[in-house]
Amino acid sequence: MFEYRLLRLDLSEWKAREEVLPESIIRKYLGGRGLGAYLALKEIPPHISPFSPENKIYILTGPLTGTAAFETGRYHVVGKSPLTGILGDSNSGGQFGPWLRFSGYDGVVIEGASDEPVWVSIVDGEVEFHPAKRLWGKGVVHTEKVIRREMKTPSEHVGSILSIGPAGENLSRIAAIMNDKYRAAGRTGLAAVLGSKKFKALFVKGSRKIELADKERFRAESKKVMKKISEHSISEALGKYGTAVLVNIINAHGAFPTKNWTRGTFEKAFEISGEYLAEKYLVSNKGCWGCIIQCSRVAKVDKGPYRTPVSEGPEYESIWSMGANTLIGNLEAIIKLNYLANDLGFDTISLGNTMAVLMELYEKARKGELPKEKAEELFNLLEDIEPEWGNADAFIQLVWRTAYRHGIGDKTAEGAMRLAEYFGSPESAIHVKGLELPAYDPRGINSMALSYATSNRGGCHLRAYAVSFDVLGVPEKYDPVKIDMRKVELVKYQQDYFSVIDSLVVCKFNTFATDHNDYVPLLQSALGWDDLTGDELLTIGERIYNLERLFAVREGHGYQDTLPKRLLEEPLPDGPAKGLTAKEALEAYLPRFYELRGWENGIPKPETLKRLGLEEFEYIVR
Amino acid sequence: MFEYRLLRLDLSEWKAREEVLPESIIRKYLGGRGLGAYLALKEIPPHISPFSPENKIYILTGPLTGTAAFETGRYHVVGKSPLTGILGDSNSGGQFGPWLRFSGYDGVVIEGASDEPVWVSIVDGEVEFHPAKRLWGKGVVHTEKVIRREMKTPSEHVGSILSIGPAGENLSRIAAIMNDKYRAAGRTGLAAVLGSKKFKALFVKGSRKIELADKERFRAESKKVMKKISEHSISEALGKYGTAVLVNIINAHGAFPTKNWTRGTFEKAFEISGEYLAEKYLVSNKGCWGCIIQCSRVAKVDKGPYRTPVSEGPEYESIWSMGANTLIGNLEAIIKLNYLANDLGFDTISLGNTMAVLMELYEKARKGELPKEKAEELFNLLEDIEPEWGNADAFIQLVWRTAYRHGIGDKTAEGAMRLAEYFGSPESAIHVKGLELPAYDPRGINSMALSYATSNRGGCHLRAYAVSFDVLGVPEKYDPVKIDMRKVELVKYQQDYFSVIDSLVVCKFNTFATDHNDYVPLLQSALGWDDLTGDELLTIGERIYNLERLFAVREGHGYQDTLPKRLLEEPLPDGPAKGLTAKEALEAYLPRFYELRGWENGIPKPETLKRLGLEEFEYIVR
Repeated sequence: MFEYRLLRLDLSEWKAREEVLPESIIRKYLGGRGLGAYLALKEIPPHISPFSPENKIYILTGPLTGTAAFETGRYHVVGKSPLTGILGDSNSGGQFGPWLRFSGYDGVVIEGASDEPVWVSIVDGEVEFHPAKRLWGKGVVHTEKVIRREMKTPSEHVGSILSIGPAGENLSRIAAIMNDKYRAAGRTGLAAVLGSKKFKALFVKGSRKIELADKERFRAESKKVMKKISEHSISEALGKYGTAVLVNIINAHGAFPTKNWTRGTFEKAFEISGEYLAEKYLVSNKGCWGCIIQCSRVAKVDKGPYRTPVSEGPEYESIWSMGANTLIGNLEAIIKLNYLANDLGFDTISLGNTMAVLMELYEKARKGELPKEKAEELFNLLEDIEPEWGNADAFIQLVWRTAYRHGIGDKTAEGAMRLAEYFGSPESAIHVKGLELPAYDPRGINSMALSYATSNRGGCHLRAYAVSFDVLGVPEKYDPVKIDMRKVELVKYQQDYFSVIDSLVVCKFNTFATDHNDYVPLLQSALGWDDLTGDELLTIGERIYNLERLFAVREGHGYQDTLPKRLLEEPLPDGPAKGLTAKEALEAYLPRFYELRGWENGIPKPETLKRLGLEEFEYIVR
Repeated sequence: MFEYRLLRLDLSEWKAREEVLPESIIRKYLGGRGLGAYLALKEIPPHISPFSPENKIYILTGPLTGTAAFETGRYHVVGKSPLTGILGDSNSGGQFGPWLRFSGYDGVVIEGASDEPVWVSIVDGEVEFHPAKRLWGKGVVHTEKVIRREMKTPSEHVGSILSIGPAGENLSRIAAIMNDKYRAAGRTGLAAVLGSKKFKALFVKGSRKIELADKERFRAESKKVMKKISEHSISEALGKYGTAVLVNIINAHGAFPTKNWTRGTFEKAFEISGEYLAEKYLVSNKGCWGCIIQCSRVAKVDKGPYRTPVSEGPEYESIWSMGANTLIGNLEAIIKLNYLANDLGFDTISLGNTMAVLMELYEKARKGELPKEKAEELFNLLEDIEPEWGNADAFIQLVWRTAYRHGIGDKTAEGAMRLAEYFGSPESAIHVKGLELPAYDPRGINSMALSYATSNRGGCHLRAYAVSFDVLGVPEKYDPVKIDMRKVELVKYQQDYFSVIDSLVVCKFNTFATDHNDYVPLLQSALGWDDLTGDELLTIGERIYNLERLFAVREGHGYQDTLPKRLLEEPLPDGPAKGLTAKEALEAYLPRFYELRGWENGIPKPETLKRLGLEEFEYIVR
C-alpha cells in the first residue's frame, strides 16, 4: 500500500502536524501538481487574497520522485497565485525533491503566517522551526550558505534547501521559489506567498528509503526507458548546448520574440545562443538528481562589468526574456542578469517581460504616446534610470530596485500586466491570464496559440509544448504556420500527459522520447498498481487538467482562453512568419478544443466532471 | 525669558511629551550640539549598545535657527554612535531646522523603540504618529513624496521632512539622517539608531513666530555681519563653484587623498572639480533657508549610464571620497553615486572611504597579501562584483548591496574600520576613533593632524577646519607643512568657536568672515542676554568640547588622540608634500594642545571641569 506522508507546517503557531493520505487519493491525483490542485481546491477558501494567511503553499513530490527511474529530481509547488489570482503552480529540478522525500515526507504544506521570519529544517522526520530574522533581506546564495553552516551540512551533495530571496519577501508578484541556489520554481509568483507568510527557507535531509512494490521489475523497466531517452537526438542536443540550443532554432523559425514581441527575429541571436555560451562561458554541464541528460549549464564571466562567478544558467527562456526581448545582445550581461535574478529570487521569464514592458513604456512616454500625467509619473519614478532598449546597465539596476520595490521597482515588482495597466498601456504586456508569455511567438508556431490560450496557469509553454511537433518534429513534424486540426488533439494529449508528468514528478525532457504508456510498467512495479493502464493514466491527467480549470471557474475569472491583442492583431513584420497573426489559428482551434475537452466556453460540463470522477466539485459549474 | 521647548517622542508607546528647558541650561549649552551633548551625557546610560532602546537621538535647533540673522537654516543631531561607540553628532542644512522651530518645538528627542515602522508629523504643535510599514525599505526621495502627499503639503517651500533610507533601516553604521531629500546629517551613523528604533521620518510644519528680545537691534546687527559675509572672497567662491571649488586647491597642495590615502594628488582632479561641474552639469545654485552664500549645487546628467535627474550635490567631500579616493575620475559617475547614496541614505564620506578599503582589500587578496581564508571569503562574498580601483559600475552595485546588506554588503555596511579588521587588514581603514577621515591629507596640511586626532566625534574636518589658515589664509596664511606652535592655539580656538556655531545653530561657512565676537550683539539682542561677552561665548564652546570628551571617557575609549598608521608612518609618495608623514606634527602639537585644554592624556582634569562649571560630571574623571 502506497502511503503519501504529508507534513503540515502551521506558521502561525510554529507547529508541525503529520498527515497520511490514503492510496485512493494518490491513485486519483498521483502527487505533485495533481495532488496540489486537489488539496488547494478543497482547502483554500474562494476569493481570498493570495497574501491572506488562509492561502497555502503545497511543496509536493510524487511517487517517482527520488526513485532510480530517470529524471526524478524534481518537485512541484502549488498555491493561489498573486500574479494571476487563480491556481498557481511551478516545478523545479536540482536536488530538492529527492531530499525532501528522503527527509521523511512526500510533501510539505505551508499554512498560516508567522509574525516573524522563520525557516524550517526537516532531518529524518525531525522538524524544527528557526528564527530567520538574520536571513531576511538576504540573497539566496547567502541564505543557503548560512543554513548549511547552521545545519553542519557543508557538502552540496547532501541535503537541499528551498528558499525565497528579497523579491519574495517584498511580495513581488514575479518572485520565484528557489532551491539549490540556482534552480527556480519560478512561475506564478508563489514566492511572494511565502514572503507574506514570512517563510524564508526549508532545509531537508535524511536517509529514508523509497519503497518499491517490485524492485527488480522497476529497475528493468526503468532501464528500458532510460535507453530510449539517452539515445534520443534531442537529449543529446540538450546535453551538449543546454536548453539555449533553441535560440538559433526558434529564431530561424521567426518565432523568437524580440523587442517586447514586436518582432520575430533577433539579429544578435547567435551571440546569445547555446552554441556561443558553450564556446565562451561554459564551465561544465550539470544535471539534476539522477538525470542522464545533464542539460543545466555551469557558466561564468571572468572579467569586466558583467563578471559572474561560477554558477548555474542561463536557460533558453532567461536568455530570451532578458536578451532578445529587451534587445540586449550581450551574453555576458545576460549571464550576470540571470545570476542576480536567481540570487534575488525572480522568475526570469516574468522579469524579462516586465523589463521589456518598461522599455516600451519609456519609449512611448518619450514619444508622447502615454497619457501626460502617466508619462510624468514614469519619469519621476525612474529617477536616475534610462531604460532604453538594450540598456543592460539600466536593467541590472532595475533588478535591485524591483527586488526592494525602490522607486519604479514598486511598479515593476507587480509584473508586466499591472505595470502596463498602471501606466495606461495595457496592450504592452504580453501575458495570458496575468502570466507573462515565454519564448515562442504563436504567430510563428501556431499550435502555441492554443497551448498558451488554454493553459490553466496562464501564459506557459509547459502545459503543452507544441514546439515539439511544430518545430522539433516529435512525435512527427507539422508545418508550424499551417492550420491543421490534428494539432488540437496533440495539444490536448500533451496537456493531459504533462499533467501526469508533473504529478509523478518527473522531468518533461524525457517526453521527447517517451509517451504515457512508458510510465505504466514503471508505476505498476513501483506502486503495485498492477491493473493500471495507459488510458487510466491519461484520464488522471485529464482529471487534473479539469481540476485546475475548476479553481479558475470558482474564482470567477481566468477561464477565458485568449491571447494578447498584439499577437492576435499585429502581424509579425519580419522573418519566416512575416505577415501572420495568431488570430486565425486560435479561432480555428479553440472550438474543437472545447469539444474534445467536454467544456463549454472554457467551463467543464457537469457530465465531463462526472466522467472524470470529479462529482464532488460539480457545485462549481452548476 | 528664552524658553527651549523640547518634544520627547516615546516610540515604545507612540506617545509625545513636552518639556520646557529653563534658560539657565541654554545659557550654559546654547542648543544644538551643546545641548545635545549635555542631555546625552545625562540621559543615555553608560555602556549600552547604540542599538538599545535606551539610546536616544536628539534633533535640536538653537536660539538662532530660523531667525532672520544669516545662514540659520541648520539643525544638529546627537546620540550614541554605532560607528564610533562614543558620542556621535552631525549637522545638516536645507529647510528642516527652521521648519522644526516653526512647528512649535525647538528640539525633538527620539526615545525608546517602536515595534513597527513609524513616522511622526508635527504641525503647529500637533503631534501625530503614523504607521510607516509602506515606507519601510523605500528611498528618501520616494518617502518624502509619499509623506508630502499624505500631509497635503506638495510645495517643497512649505514644511520639511527628515528621514532615513534603507541604509539606516538595515542598521548600516555609515547611514545618514537625510532631510529635504538631498541634505544629510551624515556623520557617525546615527541613522542606524533611528533604524533600530523603527523610526522612518519626521514631518514638520507650522507658523510659530520666533520671538526676539530686541527685534530692531537684532536686525541691524545681522545686517552688519551679513555684509561682511557677502563681501568675503570665500563666500563668493563657494557661491560660484560650490564646495567642490576645493578640489583643485587641495590637489595643488598635494593633500588630496587619492587611492585610499596612498597618494596626495589625483591626475584627474580637474575633471571632478567644481569648475568642471559648473561647466558641464550644473543646473543652478541653491541655498539653505535664509542663506546668502548659495553654495549648494543643483546638477544633472542628461544621458548615458550615469544619467541622474535634477538633484542636489555633489559636495567636495562626496566628490573626493567616491572619486579620487577610489580612483574614479568620471564626474558623471560620481554625480550618480552621490544621488544613490543620498536616496539610500548613506554618509558619502564614510561610504567612499569604505569602498576604497574594499578596493584595497580586493587588490591585496589578488596579490596574495591577505590571509588565505580571508581572501577566499572576500571573493566568495563579492559574488559577481570586481571592485577594481576606478570601477564605477561595481561601486554603483555595491551601494545597493551595502544598503540591503546583500553579500559583501553585509560587511561594507559596517564601515571602513570593521570591514578592514574583518578581512585582516586593519591598517587599510583610514579613520580616527572609528570615523572615516574626510578629504584633507594631514601629511600635506599639518594642522589637520591635530584637528583630526583630537576631534571628539572621530575623524572630522568640522571640529576645527585648519584648512582655513593652513591653506585658505583665514584669518592669516600659515605654511601647511611647517610645524608652527601658534597653530595649536588656532585649532583649539576653532574647536571652541565651532562648538558655539554648531549650538546656535548656524552655518560654519560664515566663520571665514566672522569670529566669535560677531555673535555677541546678535545673541544679546535675540535673547536679551545683555551681559553676554565674547569670552563667555568661547567658554561655552570650551565647555561643550569638554562635555563631549567626557562621554568618551565614560565609555572607556575614544579619548585616545591619534591618527591611522598610514598617515603617521608612510610618507606621501607624490606632490608638494612628498616625503612627509603626519607624525612629527602630531607629536609636536598634541602635548601643547593638552596643556591649553587642561587635559591629561586626553582626559579633562577635575580643575578644568570646575573652571567650566561642569562639576556635576567630575565623577567621570575621578
